[in-house]
This record gives sequence, C-alpha cells and structure tokens, in this order.
Amino acid sequence: MDYSNILQEVYEKVSKEEGRGGVASYIPELAKVDPLKFGVFFKEINGRDFGMGDFDEKFSIQSIAKVASLCLAYKMLGEKIWERMGVEPSGTPFNSLVQLESDRGVPRNPFINAGAIVICDILIGELNNPEEDLLSFMREISDNSSISFSENIAESEKSTGYRNVALCNFIKSFGNIENSPEKVIDFYFKLCSIEMSCREISCAFLFLANGGRKISDNKQILSESQTKRTNAIMQSCGLYDESGEFTFKVGLPGKSGVGGGILAIHPYKYAVTLWSPKLNSKGNSYKGMRFLELFTTKARSSIF
Amino acid sequence: MDYSNILQEVYEKVSKEEGRGGVASYIPELAKVDPLKFGVFFKEINGRDFGMGDFDEKFSIQSIAKVASLCLAYKMLGEKIWERMGVEPSGTPFNSLVQLESDRGVPRNPFINAGAIVICDILIGELNNPEEDLLSFMREISDNSSISFSENIAESEKSTGYRNVALCNFIKSFGNIENSPEKVIDFYFKLCSIEMSCREISCAFLFLANGGRKISDNKQILSESQTKRTNAIMQSCGLYDESGEFTFKVGLPGKSGVGGGILAIHPYKYAVTLWSPKLNSKGNSYKGMRFLELFTTKARSSIF
Amino acid sequence: MDYSNILQEVYEKVSKEEGRGGVASYIPELAKVDPLKFGVFFKEINGRDFGMGDFDEKFSIQSIAKVASLCLAYKMLGEKIWERMGVEPSGTPFNSLVQLESDRGVPRNPFINAGAIVICDILIGELNNPEEDLLSFMREISDNSSISFSENIAESEKSTGYRNVALCNFIKSFGNIENSPEKVIDFYFKLCSIEMSCREISCAFLFLANGGRKISDNKQILSESQTKRTNAIMQSCGLYDESGEFTFKVGLPGKSGVGGGILAIHPYKYAVTLWSPKLNSKGNSYKGMRFLELFTTKARSSIF
Amino acid sequence: MDYSNILQEVYEKVSKEEGRGGVASYIPELAKVDPLKFGVFFKEINGRDFGMGDFDEKFSIQSIAKVASLCLAYKMLGEKIWERMGVEPSGTPFNSLVQLESDRGVPRNPFINAGAIVICDILIGELNNPEEDLLSFMREISDNSSISFSENIAESEKSTGYRNVALCNFIKSFGNIENSPEKVIDFYFKLCSIEMSCREISCAFLFLANGGRKISDNKQILSESQTKRTNAIMQSCGLYDESGEFTFKVGLPGKSGVGGGILAIHPYKYAVTLWSPKLNSKGNSYKGMRFLELFTTKARSSIF
Repeated sequence: MDYSNILQEVYEKVSKEEGRGGVASYIPELAKVDPLKFGVFFKEINGRDFGMGDFDEKFSIQSIAKVASLCLAYKMLGEKIWERMGVEPSGTPFNSLVQLESDRGVPRNPFINAGAIVICDILIGELNNPEEDLLSFMREISDNSSISFSENIAESEKSTGYRNVALCNFIKSFGNIENSPEKVIDFYFKLCSIEMSCREISCAFLFLANGGRKISDNKQILSESQTKRTNAIMQSCGLYDESGEFTFKVGLPGKSGVGGGILAIHPYKYAVTLWSPKLNSKGNSYKGMRFLELFTTKARSSIF
Repeated sequence: MDYSNILQEVYEKVSKEEGRGGVASYIPELAKVDPLKFGVFFKEINGRDFGMGDFDEKFSIQSIAKVASLCLAYKMLGEKIWERMGVEPSGTPFNSLVQLESDRGVPRNPFINAGAIVICDILIGELNNPEEDLLSFMREISDNSSISFSENIAESEKSTGYRNVALCNFIKSFGNIENSPEKVIDFYFKLCSIEMSCREISCAFLFLANGGRKISDNKQILSESQTKRTNAIMQSCGLYDESGEFTFKVGLPGKSGVGGGILAIHPYKYAVTLWSPKLNSKGNSYKGMRFLELFTTKARSSIF
Repeated sequence: MDYSNILQEVYEKVSKEEGRGGVASYIPELAKVDPLKFGVFFKEINGRDFGMGDFDEKFSIQSIAKVASLCLAYKMLGEKIWERMGVEPSGTPFNSLVQLESDRGVPRNPFINAGAIVICDILIGELNNPEEDLLSFMREISDNSSISFSENIAESEKSTGYRNVALCNFIKSFGNIENSPEKVIDFYFKLCSIEMSCREISCAFLFLANGGRKISDNKQILSESQTKRTNAIMQSCGLYDESGEFTFKVGLPGKSGVGGGILAIHPYKYAVTLWSPKLNSKGNSYKGMRFLELFTTKARSSIF
Repeated sequence: MDYSNILQEVYEKVSKEEGRGGVASYIPELAKVDPLKFGVFFKEINGRDFGMGDFDEKFSIQSIAKVASLCLAYKMLGEKIWERMGVEPSGTPFNSLVQLESDRGVPRNPFINAGAIVICDILIGELNNPEEDLLSFMREISDNSSISFSENIAESEKSTGYRNVALCNFIKSFGNIENSPEKVIDFYFKLCSIEMSCREISCAFLFLANGGRKISDNKQILSESQTKRTNAIMQSCGLYDESGEFTFKVGLPGKSGVGGGILAIHPYKYAVTLWSPKLNSKGNSYKGMRFLELFTTKARSSIF
C-alpha cells in the first residue's frame, strides 16, 4: 500500500488546524521552541519513506529517549529488569509519586519518570561510561554519529527538576536505586536531553517494526520476543495517562515526549515520528495525536 | 498457518502443570465449580476451528459479558457513550471505588465494574426489555438461541454483591446513573450471570476479529472503526490491573471473567476462548493466562 | 466568671457580619431553611444559662446526633465498640470512601458518616426497638419528651442519600455491617433527622461537661472515663476535615451538623450550641465557627 | 494536688512491663541506643518537679524539636506562617508524600516531616545564622547553655534520609520551599539531631503550660493566644497518625520523637517528658504512651 497520498492529505489538514495547548514551560529551554514547528517522517521496513514539514530539524526528544534506555537495559539484562519495575499502566500522571508509596518504590512501568529513573540506575550499574555508551547505542541503532545530548537542555532541566530529584530519592528510600541519587538523576537529565529530528527518530527505532533487526545491516538489536514486548509496553504505557486514549484513537504502540515528539510503530510495517511542540493537558503533542488518529483511521492502519 | 499442532502441544503442557490460585469464592454459586475444568476453543475467520478439553461445557462467563454489553451500547449510541466513561486503564483493582471519588463518578473504562454498571444504565434507558433484548443480541451474534442467564448465579451474586451495590449508588450520587440503582444493579447481576461454553464465546465474538461482521451471514454488528476501538479497549483494560501484563506476555486484546474464562481476539485472524476456574491474585484464570502466553509465543502470533 | 457580656458582645458582632457560604442543598428539605436564622444557647454546669436569637427554634441537628448515638452505644458496649472503628481523624471529607478501601471497611472514627453508620448497625443489634429506644435515650438525657425525628427530613435524605447507601454497602462488603444495609441506612437517616433547638441540644449534652452526670438528677449517663474519651473524639474528629482548624481556633471539643448547628463542650464548665444554616466549604456553619472563635478568644476559655 | 505518688506508682508498674516494639533502626546512630532506658521528668508551673529513672540522660529528641522550630517561626512571623502549611491532622504516616501531591505542596501541619521542612525553610529565610540562632533559642527557653546538635546523629540521618530529601524536593517543585533543598534539608537534619534529657525538655517547654511565659524570668516566649494554638496543634497532630489515639487515651497535647521521647503539656499545670526508646508501629514510644495513659487516668488529669 502506498501511504504517501494519505500522509500528505492528513498533513495538510492538520497543518491548517489551530494547534491547541501550549509548549512545555517547566523546562526553561523548552519554552523557547517555536510552537508552530510541525514535522512528520514516515519510514517503512521495505525502505520507502516520506517526510513532511520540519522533519529534518532536531528537537529535544525528551521521553522518547526512554524507549532507547529501555531497549539498552533490556538487551543487556533480559527479563531480569522486571524485578525492578512492572509493565502496567499507572493510571496517574507521568510524574506522580502517589503509587510509588503504596507500591513500595517499584515503578509501574519503564516509561513513567519513576521507571525511567530506575532504568538509568540499572544502566549506570552495567555500563563503563553510561553517557558515552548510551550515545554509542543511539548512534548505532540510527547509523548516525551526529546524535548528541544537549548540555543546555540537561542543565535547564536540572535547574528546575525538583520533582524528578524527589522521585529518585523517594525510590532510593525504598532501596530500588543502587547508585547515588545525584549520579542517577544527572544521567536521567542527560538521557532526556537528546536531540534528534523526526527522520532520525524514525530511522533509529525502525528495528522495533522489524522484529528487532536493523534494516541497514540486519543486525539484531533486540530479540523478536523482546521487540514484541517493548512494543506492547509502548501500547500500554507510552502516552502516560492518555495511553488508553491513544490506543483507542490511534491503535499503534507509541511513545511521546514533552518536546512535542511522538513515535509510533506499526509492527512489521513502519515507524512514524511526529513533531509539534504544543502539548495537551496530558503532556502529549496535540497535533501529533491528531495526525496519528486521522492517519490510522484513513489508512485503516491500526493494529486492531 | 495451521495452528492445531501448537494448540495441541500447549494444551497438553498446560494441562499437566499444577494450577495455582483458587476458584472465585465470593459468589457462593461460583465456588461450587470443579476447579479442574479446562477447555479451549479456537476459531479462525476462515472457518477453521479447534476445541480441546471441556470446550463444550457451559460456565459462568461473568465479566466477558461486559464485551457484549459494551458492543450493544456502542452499536446503539455510538461515540456518545464516552461522555459517560473513559477508555483509560485504571491501574487499580476491578471493584475499586477510589478513583471514582477523584474522577467524580466517571468510570475509567467500560470493563471495570463501575463502567459496566454505567453501560447497564445506558442500556436500560435505550432498550424496551433490557434483559430480553440483551439476550436477543447475544443469541444473534452467536447464532445460538440456547444462551441464557443463570437465575442461580444472579441470585447468588445479589446475595453478596454489596460492593457492586456500593459502586452503583456511589456513581448515582455523582449523577452518572439515570435509573434507580436497584434496577441497574439487578440488570448488571443478570448480565454477569450469562452461561456459555468456550465454543459459544469464540463464535459469538468472532466478529471482533472480522472487522465487525459476523462470519455466518456477513451482517455488520459494529462498524469497522467501532470494532477496532473495542479491541483497543480490550487491549488496554480487558484484564483489570493485569492488563499491562497480559499485553506484555500475550499480546492480544482480551477479556477475562472471574468464572475462569478468557476471550482473546487476533484482529483479522481468530478468536480463542479459554476456561480454567482457578484464578490468580488479580482475578484472572491462571491456566488461561499461561496457555495464551505459551501459544502466542510459540505461534509468534501476537499483534506486536 | 460571668460570660454573659462576652456572649452578648460576640453575638452582636457576628450577627452583623455577612454570613458566607450557603445552606446545605443536597438534602431537599434542608434547602428550605431560612439562611438568616441565628441562635446561641450557653449553659453552665452550675445552672446559669444564656440564650440569644433563635435559640428556641427547632432545627435539623443532623450529625450532632452522632454524639448521641456514640454515647448510647458506648454506654451499652463499652470499649468493645472500638473493635469496629477507630478514633483517628480521617484527613478526608465526611463522606469519603477512599480510606475505607485501604482500611478494609473499618471507619476511622464514629463521627464521619462511615463510623456513624457502623454505630447504627451496633445499636440495631443491641436495641429491641432501635428508633424508639434511641428517642427514649435522647429524651432522657435532655429531660424533654418532645424530641422527635422528622419524617420529612428522613424521607428527603433517603431520596438523595445515594452516597450514604454506597458507604453502608461498601462497609458491609468488608463484613463490618451485621444487619441488612437497608435497615441500617434507614435507621441512620432517622438518626440524622432529629430536630432540636439550641437550648435542647445544650441541655441534652451538658452531661459531657459534667463528668458524665446529668445536672438535673445526677444520673450517670457515661462513666467519667467514657465522658473524657467522648470529648477527646469530638476534639480530634468532630468537625470532619476541619477538626484541626476548630481545635486551633476554638480550642473546645465540638460537633457540627450540616443543618448549621455546632455543639461545643468545655469540660467541667459549660455546653454551648450555635445555629446558623450557612455552611462553609467543609460543611460547617460559617457563623457558628466564627462565634466560637471570637468567644473562646475573648473569654480566654479554650481548654489549651 | 501532689502527683508524686501516682507518678511513682505508674513508673514502677510500667517499668516492670515488657516493652514492645523496637528501637528506630532507619537512622543507624539511633539503632545503637540501649532499648531499656526509661526516664520520666514531671515539672509543674508552681515549681514542683519529680524525676524517675534515666531522666537526666541526654537522648536524641528528634521530632520533639519540631515544637521548638514551630515556636520560633511562629514567634517571629505570627499567623503568616499558616500561608505555608495547615493545622489539620494528616491521617497518614509522618513521612507520607501522598497528600502533598493532591494538596499541591502545602503540608497539612507543622509536625509531619513535610511541614517541619517548610518551617526550616522559613527559619533559614528569617535567621542570620539559622543553626546558631535556633540553638540560642533552645538554650534561652531552657536556661541551659549545654544544649547542642549531635553531629553524629545529623550525619547518620543524612546518610539514609532519602525520603526526607524526596519530601523537600517535592515541596520545592510546588514552589513552597524558597531556599535550596540541600540547605533546607541540612538544617532539618540538624534540628532533629538535638540532644536533651527528659529534665531539659520539660524545663524548656514548660512555658507552653504557662500561657507562653518562662517560669524562671517570666519572659513571654509566645503570646497567650499563640501558646494555646501551639498546644492545640500538638493535640491534633503531635503523634502523627496516632494523634487521635493519644488524644483519646492520654488527653493532653503532646509531641513524640523517634528517639523514644514524648513531651506532654497540661495547660496551666505541668509539662512531663518520657523517654523509652522502643517504638510501636506508628513510631511512638511504647512505654511513653503507656505511662501517660495510666498516669492521666489515675490522676484524672486529662484536659477533657
């Protein structure tokens, strides 16, 4: 099936619509982004791809990076990582501390902040040079050596990231963080500061639509089972407490970031990345959600 | 692909395993069920089917009936029903009242008890003879006039169902129940008391694997979009606070009942129903979960 | 000390102030009350008393009756009643169901609705004719045979009291209600419907300021220890989630009702009852709180 | 009234009883304390005093110091401090983060950890040399220049105090901490590390039983109104989520610490301090609670 017409049509329609919501303001650097940016990059496992708008402009991928950190930890430690966190949706906002108290420091899943922080702790324990090794992994899966952290964003996040510091220390108080909270949270802020374009994100994570293998060199990044399971967690938990709505309206595994990006995967078909910085009340890109809903409806391309 | 060998192999393996957990005991009538029953019925949209064990014995389908009540209300009212409830997983047990308080009486989804009770209220408002009309719908989608309520089960449930009475009155106090709580809760207990065999369940809900159309007469029960959305809600919310685990391990939309049944749908491929009465701590069939995990893994047949 | 001048002065001051808030509207009959009513009745254990404004007009005492039901159950069963509920403030609104879920059906204290409902269940189990026997007790402690239920109020409450029905069934589901929820909730609505004037309330509960003995005939209603403990619970829990504020500003054990009444006790000194129907956001009489704060401050008559 | 016989009798009785519970273990230094220590110091505003057991041995007063920090802040800023926290009991454990989330960073009261941390932030903003100035205040109210912090305890607490660091950063994220979390939490750990004997504690806080005036020099530490209000908060919130139980059984304003100390005040009569390191499940001294319950019962000396 040739998706380009539908992609084009939906892009034009959503471009014209008024974007609701506002740019993430709690991280000072993010607040500076042009709210009118809008990019889409669609890439099929058969090699076809299609970009629209600002698809080649780098932006702060924020929580989309949590897919990468999960994949790296999962690849290295296998199912053992689930001793440290669950795979259930939380039913609460992304930075909530409430459940952690009743769950005794075990995060519900690797995509809420609490879980991603535990993944960072795991990676620090496993990697010799966590920041470099993580970047190497990102560069490897995307065949792109330009991918980097943004020191500005990481610093900016650190300057106001009290809630994440609270989360990290809270989990530590339950014994589910092994390293020092300072080290873990610094790595976490670095992780979230990665900058990539829509094209780069779609290329990097296309292996999740290909049974765990990279397209370019057929290298197995995750096993087929791990890949399916990663997609499953994206389906259940990828859009915070809007994951059910995303599953309902879009019907694809996805992961959002407060930079305004959304990555969605159609297993064995394609990866698609959206970028539009205005966020709805749940912290997800308003136009990104809208584009994907219209696209999967028109293309009849949900997994359900 | 011929699934029969894998089905047979997994059935034999799981049959031999010791079943953990216990039969639902809070409904007196359910506690009488033989805990060693084990049935599987697999039915593809191309007509092939395959049954194993006690697949022709009727059992209390309990919450699996919530798929039917949702479909009937969705068919009649369309997207309007979402004004009365959400599509998000709850992150809490199936009969929890906690979220309802902060959510002001709006249930998170139609599959937790609170949501199913609101669906019952909607159906009472729309149907002339709610009980008969619901049975007619069940009989129609399954081409089977023998499907009925169990008065015994409904009475038994009523005698101890104080928590559901509490839920219904609690929602009413927020104004999200229109009819009298007594009427709504009686209908709810009736709904949960429906008895069907694995074969009957797979046949009844096979339209969810067929874009909304019945196989026998090609009649459209739900639109394709409604069908996809129903499957999506099953994926997000079908197994209570184990929905994420089910998505992770099984990778199919599913719906469980405390009678020990689980229905799973592979869109555009098949419906499969399991029955084994011993439940895990989350209220889902232990062997049912186990069977589906092994089957979708061996058959590489998850949607992810 | 002669309190009459201060009482008069504070009464005049508060009378002139604009009353904030509104009359309880969720019970239709209560909504009909004249919001400008304002009465005070002060009665010392030495026999002196002092009334101002509408102090002889009967009003719906609502939750103030929970002091009577607690005293009657405490008198009959002693410390055994604490196996069924606690003595801790709840930190949540009066009709909250949240804590009951984590506390497995054991109410925090006898003054939140949940606890008062359990007290009603206890009384039904102990009394031959619960309604008559409760009235007899009320009449006995107040030397006043005119005290009665209001059928209108009880019916009105029943017509909209879904949340209390929910509470009662929820507690029953945990096994902490022995009788049928219908019977218990009917008795509870009756209890809350009692009508008394400020004068009658102060007279009835003056024994709590007198070591448990009635003034008129020196009859021991509660033991001295039970009396102190009842006052202590009023201090900790008598004004719902405003109990701390009341302790802070007024500094006396007290109990409020949504009819706009507040009873306060100064141990070994006096009982005082206020009535002003406009309620603040916590469900307590705005002018009642205000009067007591000014009075205990000017008279330097808190227990602290 | 001469309390010495009753004090002696109760002391002997409780001394012989087996102490339940265990020493606080989460602060390594506290775990080293001899669990069999038991001291009582009773001091009346008329000058009489009475000590029993280890009443002259210094111990870690921990949260009892929160009374001092509250008094100092209250003295300096007056009612303005209530813009930053409430006076309601929390209904939850002392270190809970749950309520802070729904209450948007405003602690329920100054005695739970969250509130005491905000008080520390206030004091840092008001004092030139917070640590020294706080010590000066402690030394002044107790006429005792030997009162000091324990560097060991403060360090020990810091080494494991992740939960308090979490609390502080969490509150900061809501904007209710003005200084850097590191500075605030260091001061908080210092505050909790103060060491005093039962005698010293009773002497220091006797002004709370004397309308705010020191006995030795009649100096007004707090106004009479502030004193009453401080006692009221101790009544409502002084023993964490056992405050209601303490009010019910003991009937005096009190404040406990995890070092095993409890201070209780009888307004216009006396201050009494207990020390026994074994704690019950709520974190309060088992024998301390027991002693006070027996004493106020036998002496008929509760405020109710």
